[in-house]
Formats: sequence, structure tokens, C-alpha cells
Amino acid sequence: MEAKITTDICIIGAGPVGLFAVFEAGLLKMRCHLIDVLPQAGGQLSEIYPQKPIYDIPGFPTINAQELVENLKEQIAPFQPTFTLGEKVEEVIKLETGEFLIRTNGQSVVEARVIVIAGGLGCFEPRKPELKNLERFEGRGVHYFVKNTAVYRDKHVVIAGGGDSALDWTVFLADKAERVTLVHRSESFRGAPDTVDKVFALANEGKIDLLLQSNVTGLLGEDYLEGVFLERNDGSKTAIKADYFIPLFGLTPKLGPIADWGLQLHNAAIEVNTFDYSTNVPGIFAIGDINSYPGKLKLILCGFHEAALMAQSAFHIVYPDKKRTFKYTTVYGVTGF
Amino acid sequence: MEAKITTDICIIGAGPVGLFAVFEAGLLKMRCHLIDVLPQAGGQLSEIYPQKPIYDIPGFPTINAQELVENLKEQIAPFQPTFTLGEKVEEVIKLETGEFLIRTNGQSVVEARVIVIAGGLGCFEPRKPELKNLERFEGRGVHYFVKNTAVYRDKHVVIAGGGDSALDWTVFLADKAERVTLVHRSESFRGAPDTVDKVFALANEGKIDLLLQSNVTGLLGEDYLEGVFLERNDGSKTAIKADYFIPLFGLTPKLGPIADWGLQLHNAAIEVNTFDYSTNVPGIFAIGDINSYPGKLKLILCGFHEAALMAQSAFHIVYPDKKRTFKYTTVYGVTGF
Ligand SMILES: Cc1cc2nc3c(=O)[nH]c(=O)nc-3n(C[C@H](O)[C@H](O)[C@H](O)COP(=O)(O)OP(=O)(O)OC[C@H]3O[C@@H](n4cnc5c(N)ncnc54)[C@H](O)[C@@H]3O)c2cc1C
Ligand SMILES: Cc1cc2nc3c(=O)[nH]c(=O)nc-3n(C[C@H](O)[C@H](O)[C@H](O)COP(=O)(O)OP(=O)(O)OC[C@H]3O[C@@H](n4cnc5c(N)ncnc54)[C@H](O)[C@@H]3O)c2cc1C
Repeated sequence: MEAKITTDICIIGAGPVGLFAVFEAGLLKMRCHLIDVLPQAGGQLSEIYPQKPIYDIPGFPTINAQELVENLKEQIAPFQPTFTLGEKVEEVIKLETGEFLIRTNGQSVVEARVIVIAGGLGCFEPRKPELKNLERFEGRGVHYFVKNTAVYRDKHVVIAGGGDSALDWTVFLADKAERVTLVHRSESFRGAPDTVDKVFALANEGKIDLLLQSNVTGLLGEDYLEGVFLERNDGSKTAIKADYFIPLFGLTPKLGPIADWGLQLHNAAIEVNTFDYSTNVPGIFAIGDINSYPGKLKLILCGFHEAALMAQSAFHIVYPDKKRTFKYTTVYGVTGF
Repeated sequence: MEAKITTDICIIGAGPVGLFAVFEAGLLKMRCHLIDVLPQAGGQLSEIYPQKPIYDIPGFPTINAQELVENLKEQIAPFQPTFTLGEKVEEVIKLETGEFLIRTNGQSVVEARVIVIAGGLGCFEPRKPELKNLERFEGRGVHYFVKNTAVYRDKHVVIAGGGDSALDWTVFLADKAERVTLVHRSESFRGAPDTVDKVFALANEGKIDLLLQSNVTGLLGEDYLEGVFLERNDGSKTAIKADYFIPLFGLTPKLGPIADWGLQLHNAAIEVNTFDYSTNVPGIFAIGDINSYPGKLKLILCGFHEAALMAQSAFHIVYPDKKRTFKYTTVYGVTGF
């Protein structure tokens, strides 16, 4: 049986804006549950640029992206938010009682009075190479993420890509797989110089095969992958044995299932008004990078503001009979509202 | 002759929001000059609650108000803003060239393409007692601020009030003036316990006169103040000699001259749209506590967002021929936009 989580606000997306929404909701005594398809909170900051500095967070002349995420987690801790990580929200149903049922691809079910979509650019999905038969071999030799490294032991693994992920996994699997081949379309890599040096060293020592100026152009096999076709930029072609093909061309965001919930969309973003960042569906708000309104800037500081205004209206849905007077945290602390 | 300051954006009010506007403008290569009637930057934070913690600045689980102001000053330093402090903006004139001329009560003149009003709750003005003849004696014995303490030497000074200012100045002037009388309407003081103790000690030692449960009810004198009438809460009346009367009942914000610049007002705030926080006068924006729009919250974090959107439109006024592409500080730093 499914375990159902009941909460006041279900926040879809645990990026910086979803996290801060917990604070603004918490001040007004609303509990939050957050769902994110990524295995950690922090959104783009933790997934794309954790160690990079941000300069336009007010009050921080500079702050590392991951440090900002940690600070936000500390700031919301008093409100004890709960999380479902590593699962994608796939379905949203409005019940007759006015509450929402939110279902993930991991069988989690959340019941909430209010939904706040803080889904950023949407779900991050692997950028896939254009290859005939690709889907046929997905999960049957073609992997877009490295999850369980044990499966590659003593196997022939072909990795494609020129960034950090491709380099890191090549180094990591070099002495575990039977043979690792790294295929890259150009001569130079975008990854960390140290790792690039290591990959060239492994190739020189004959511990991996490094195929530059080359692309994987086809897959072969019956039920499972057995090999890949390769083409050099000079036109020469070849085929090599491959039990696994791991194309690591980065992640690309997709609005995904959110596009199907009856929300008004504008350029792959959700239209909201600037009074409270509510959508056309009563009870559903959208804040942060995922919303759209005249003047919208996809900045973290804008999402923070949107979270504050959203919470005011969410309050009247969660507590239809209560009145609110405007208060300052300096005067009332975080629990005295 | 007046020295004229020429800049891209003249920001009226150097509170947290005016300060952060320098950053957002600076990213887009616009120079800023700030004017504030207070002797220091920081607005309400520095004037009213410098040592108090704020809990709802995103990324700071807690931060002292003055610390936030110092951080903001550091964050905008690369853009070298200039300041006129201790002067009130009194007049705004639109020139035929489209530029604005801004004049202060201190004879400063600023010429700018864009005006950003970040005036918070307006100018802080002393809360005045309701006394007949009060205005007649202003500057002729009645002072609302203590500026030059030398004038009180060997004079009879009557201070009224029960907060820190009244207590502090009573202690400070006790051995400088001929006689200090502190008049307070109740029996207990709101000020720091240490200072309260000191005031009672001075009264016990006969070094000051302390009149509790009393009010100043009238002023007497010809050209200059000569004395004040007093009434105790039990109804008994008396009069004492006074060269100076200093009522210290706190500051109260007033929109002041801003109310006369042809701007659309709503409840003593300036109406703006949420696209770019522009007012009804082209070229004049209003951000922070001083503006009004549906959903407005008088929070620091909201003013930060407003500053970011304002800067986008201000850019097109300052650089009418330039195009802009949206950029991230993480990728371009603060000077690479
Ligand atoms: C390289 C780079 C540099 C940047 N620099 C700056 C900068 O200097 N300043 C600045 O202000 N901004 C910067 N940004 C933009 C900033 O990162 C975004 O504005 C911010 O991340 C938006 O936060 P968010 O919480 O709205 O969304 P996100 O951070 O995108 O988080 C959204 C989360 O929702 C999850 N999600 C989406 N759909 C679902 C679903 N159906 N089910 C479950 N989970 C879902 C995603 O997995 C993601 O974790 C930069 C961005 C990049 C890529
Ligand atoms: C006790 C207290 C606690 C608070 N707690 C919080 C909190 O926890 N969180 C939060 O977000 N907010 C809080 N606030 C509110 C917060 O301080 C304001 O939102 C913030 O100060 C607004 O910033 P601002 O820059 O718009 O205006 P202000 O800080 O008011 O600054 C405006 C400046 O403009 C100047 N000015 C005005 N008119 C003129 C003129 N004609 N010429 C020259 N100068 C002029 C003024 O002197 C002033 O310095 C609190 C306020 C108080 C009083």
C-alpha cells in the first residue's frame, strides 16, 4: 500500500526558490513537503555550478552556490520541512474536497491544500545522441547516468562526451571494466585540466582507448547492446565491441509532466500574476525560474520575492478563517507570527 | 556658485533598497549618486534598529541590521557610488532635454537621466508635542535635535521624553548646562536600564531636576523662549525658567516634498506597475517601502527584487541605442555585463 504524506503546501522542486518558500510559509505556520527528481536539494545551484561564486545575492558580495543552498537549508530548518528526493512529480489531481493529490514516478503520494511549483527549468533530462535504435537499447546497454558501478565490472564500456562527467567516469572505470573506450568528437576537452591529463596518461599507458575526432554513429546487437559503430571526422569507419554505451552529453531541462496539468503556459513557463504568483488553477502557485510574467527575470533574488508574496495568499487557503496582520521577523522572531 | 553633480541615476534614499539599486544599475554600467537626509546610509536599519537581528533575508538565518547595511556597502563598492548625506531632496525638475535636475535643502544639485525614489517611509521628522506657539519658538529655543551642544552651556535646558534620546541627552548635558530638567509623563522609562539608573542617581544627587508624571503644557517668552508651563498628572501646575526646550518624542516618517512631484500616490506611497516599478512620470521609478502595488509587502527582500527589474528599464533610458542580453553574474562577474 502507498504511504500518503499529508501537508499544507506541497512544493514541487527543491531549488533555492522552493527552499526559501518553506521559510515564508513557515513564518505563517504552514507546513511544507518538497519533492525533487534530483537526489539532493539545491536545484541548478547544486547540480550545475555548486563551486561557482554568485555575486548578485543581496548582502553577499560573493557566495558559492552550494554555500547559499546550505544557508537556505539552515534558515528553513526551524520549520522542519520534509523531502521526497529522487522522484519526479508526474500527476496532480484536484479532489472534490479542494485538496490536491500529488503522485510521483516513485509511487509517493502527497495530499496538500496548496501546490507551489518551483520547478525551475523543469526536470533535468540527459541530452541524448541522435542514433537510430537508441530507445530500443535504453536500459539494455545504453545508460545515461552511472548509478551502480558494479554492473560494468569486466565489461566493455564505451563512454562518449568531452566534459567532466565523461572524463571522471572514464578514469573511475579504467581499472574496473574489462576495457574502457572514450569517444570524443574533437581534440580538446572541456573538463578539469587535471582529469584531462589523467585521461591522456591512461591512454598513453594503454589502459584505456581514447578515440578523438570521432563519433558513435550506430548501435548493434540483438536484445542487448553488443557493439557500436564509430566514424572519424576524416570519414573512416569502424565498429567495436561494447556491452555498455554511456553517452554523457550533459543534462537538458524539460518542463515534463508539468505541461499537462491544465496550467496556462507561455514559452515553456507557467503564466502567473504578480499579485501572489498564482496560476490560472486556484490553489496552484508557480515561483522562480518556472514562471512567466511581464518583466520576469530568471534570477534567484526574484524567486525569493515571489515566495514571500505567494505565502500571503496561500495562508488564506490553508487557514480560510484566520486574519493576518503584517509583522516583522525582527520584532516577532521566526515563530511569533 | 552651486556645484552640479552629473550622473546616470540619482537615487533618493540610501536605505537598503537604494543601496542595492546601485548594484543592479552598476551591473548594467550605470553610475549612481545617492542622496539621504540622514547623516548615514542604511535607512531604517541604521536609524531605528541597527543592533537588532533580521531573520528573513534569504541566505542569512540571522543577520544584524547594521551588518546587512555594511555588506551591501561592500557589495556596491566596485561601482563607486557617490553620496550626498544629511540633505533632503526638495525639488525635482524635468528639463527639456529629458534629464532631471534634483535640488536639496543643502543647495546640492544633481543632474541625472533617471530618478529612483527609494525613500522608504519618507523623511524622518521629529514627532512634535501639541503646543500653542510651538512653531513661533522653533529655532528660538525649541530644538528637536541636539546638534551643537555648545549652545546649551550655562543655560536652563528642559528636555521632555522617556526614551533613549531624552535619557542620553539628560546625562550628557547634566554637567554642561546651568540646569537640566527632564520632564516625563509617566513614572517609568523605555530607555536602557543603565541610563535610567544614571538619571535617577543624578536626580538623587540634586544634579538634575526630574519631573515624573508631568507634561510641558505651554511655552512662554517674547522673541526667544524664556520658560515652560508644566502640569502634573494630578492637576497641579507650575512654570519654570527655560532657555531651551528639547522635546525628544522620537521620529516619525513623512512623505515630505516627494508628495508634490506630480506622482500618483496611494495611501502615502507612490503607485508603480510591477513590470519595472516605474511611476506615472516617465524616467522616475519608485522601489522599496515607498511604493505601492497590488500585493505589496514592505519587506527588504521585495525591494531587492524591485531594484533588479527597475534597472532593466532604466538601462533603456540611459542607453537608448544599446541592446541587452540577459546574463548571470556567476558567468560574467560584476563587470562583464
Ligand atoms: C551557470 C549558471 C549560472 C547562474 N548564475 C546566476 C547568478 O549569478 N545569479 C542568479 O540569480 N541566478 C543565476 N543562475 C540562475 C539560477 O540558478 C536560477 O535562477 C535558480 O536556480 C532558479 O531557482 P529555482 O528554485 O526556481 O529553480 P531550479 O534551481 O531550477 O530548481 C528547480 C528544481 O525543480 C526540480 N523539478 C522540476 N520539475 C520537477 C518535477 N516534475 N518533479 C520533481 N522535481 C522537479 C528540478 O529537479 C530542480 O531541482 C545561473 C544559472 C546557471 C545555469
Ligand atoms: C523595527 C523594525 C523592524 C523591521 N524588521 C524587518 C524585518 O525583519 N524584515 C524586513 O524585511 N523588513 C523589516 N523592517 C522593514 C524594513 O526596515 C524596510 O522594509 C526597509 O528599511 C525598507 O528599505 P528602503 O530602502 O525602501 O527604505 P528606508 O530604509 O526607509 O530608507 C529610506 C531612506 O530614504 C531617505 N529619504 C526619504 N525621503 C527623502 C528625501 N526627500 N530626501 C533625502 N532622503 C530621503 C530616508 O532618510 C531613509 O534613509 C523593519 C522595520 C522596522 C522599523
